[in-house]
Amino acid sequence: MEVISDIQAMRSWTRAQKNTGQRVALVPTMGFLHEGHLSLIHAAKQHAEKVIVSIFVNPTQFGPGEDYESYFRDLDTDSAKCKAEGVDAIFHPAPDSMYLPDASAYVNEELLSLGMCGRARPGDHFKGVLTIVTKLFNICEPDLAVFGEKDGQQLRLIKRMVRDLDMPVEIINGPTLREADGLAMSSRNAYLSDEERKQALCLKQSLDLACDLVKQGESNCQILLKAIHDHIGKFDHAEIDYVEIVDDESLQPIERIESPAMLALAVKVGKARLIDNCLLTL
Amino acid sequence: MEVISDIQAMRSWTRAQKNTGQRVALVPTMGFLHEGHLSLIHAAKQHAEKVIVSIFVNPTQFGPGEDYESYFRDLDTDSAKCKAEGVDAIFHPAPDSMYLPDASAYVNEELLSLGMCGRARPGDHFKGVLTIVTKLFNICEPDLAVFGEKDGQQLRLIKRMVRDLDMPVEIINGPTLREADGLAMSSRNAYLSDEERKQALCLKQSLDLACDLVKQGESNCQILLKAIHDHIGKFDHAEIDYVEIVDDESLQPIERIESPAMLALAVKVGKARLIDNCLLTL
Repeated sequence: MEVISDIQAMRSWTRAQKNTGQRVALVPTMGFLHEGHLSLIHAAKQHAEKVIVSIFVNPTQFGPGEDYESYFRDLDTDSAKCKAEGVDAIFHPAPDSMYLPDASAYVNEELLSLGMCGRARPGDHFKGVLTIVTKLFNICEPDLAVFGEKDGQQLRLIKRMVRDLDMPVEIINGPTLREADGLAMSSRNAYLSDEERKQALCLKQSLDLACDLVKQGESNCQILLKAIHDHIGKFDHAEIDYVEIVDDESLQPIERIESPAMLALAVKVGKARLIDNCLLTL
Repeated sequence: MEVISDIQAMRSWTRAQKNTGQRVALVPTMGFLHEGHLSLIHAAKQHAEKVIVSIFVNPTQFGPGEDYESYFRDLDTDSAKCKAEGVDAIFHPAPDSMYLPDASAYVNEELLSLGMCGRARPGDHFKGVLTIVTKLFNICEPDLAVFGEKDGQQLRLIKRMVRDLDMPVEIINGPTLREADGLAMSSRNAYLSDEERKQALCLKQSLDLACDLVKQGESNCQILLKAIHDHIGKFDHAEIDYVEIVDDESLQPIERIESPAMLALAVKVGKARLIDNCLLTL
């Protein structure tokens, strides 16, 4: 397994693989890899002969006051995990090689990005995400890339960007991996104390609650959202950042569930801001 | 020479060329080709074995009230010219295959794009330009692309975008071609009446005037700009849209010429809005 930090070297590596007729997959990550990431690597290996994992804590997607500085970084452990999974190359650039001081061009989106994490997070989170993903695509030139369904809005935005900008990359969904009790795997779970870890279950419980109500015939989103607010209100370490039910295509809020919808929520549990989502269909 | 309108077919064409080791150049145009375009094609042929000319009047770079509908379109004549120049493929997509009704992702820039044509043209001109150029790059996957120096701000913006987004495309400058009397070649010159055609010379005369003053030691931009305003003021069919002297890297207005600067101007002559520019160095 190669660990590459240079942009030109990364591009050359992919081109050499493609020249021998091999398909190349990219799994973009911010490192501190857990089972969820490894499942994305498994998915990548099913679709391509060669797999790149990029490990880059992208400064432009963190807003003021967010956890950019304190975000976990452990390249040695990440490398060992990638090697054990049969990853072919890690792309691990230095922040100042990715962003020049006078960088001024960017990618953004003006519909799906406006609500949920786009509204709730400080700064211009999705502008940072779409710009770094574009850069990684242009550097790694993968045939396909795998993104986790846990970041539901991000996944849909990236698919929209690929569609609208004709990017020559196929996007593969990686299903959300969960701990035995239902908590979605996330690097940020490591912020949780024991008590907070228990209360963090309120996210998955909220998804299940809403799914059950929908199965029983409830399609009124106000009623579903109130049930979730009431449930999370019982947890004294949990503070709702947002709960939204949106159309699964446009990500615009809806009144009633009539076509596939996404229920997405962000909850602050202690100092961890956790997100989760599920599909709601009648 | 092939004329291709389908996005997938265009991408396949380029990949087939690259698979045989040939370099592919793209010359993006809005059609109605003149000698200036043909010189860009010549430049492309010097750098690559295969040349694509894209012909697409891009709706998103025209603002309300601009000449999108009336812009000249003549694919048959353009095709004949391309064939005579030894072009290998024309990419000529339909507008509705390039933009879906709910397209929402885009590329933009937040420094070099703010002044000059970015301020003067209605709508979000450079957002449209950068988005379509990104799409053409992603579809045609060229090794290099040629852009004319006549669109000075556009050329610099595209180079900035390629740098900041790590696009795997080399950008080549095509020098401005001029008529015998100095008028920069442009499809929009066809809008000019005989009298307007004479008065359109005020653009190149203004560039020459400023270059002469700088050669004589004048570095104060206010004095240079006043001389240009005074000169163009003598032409009754010419109306200044903007005249700016900017740093050649950042495109920010400067007070004195101390490092390479770009003098750029846009002048309305009759219903034609004409632009021109030159480099000013002490």
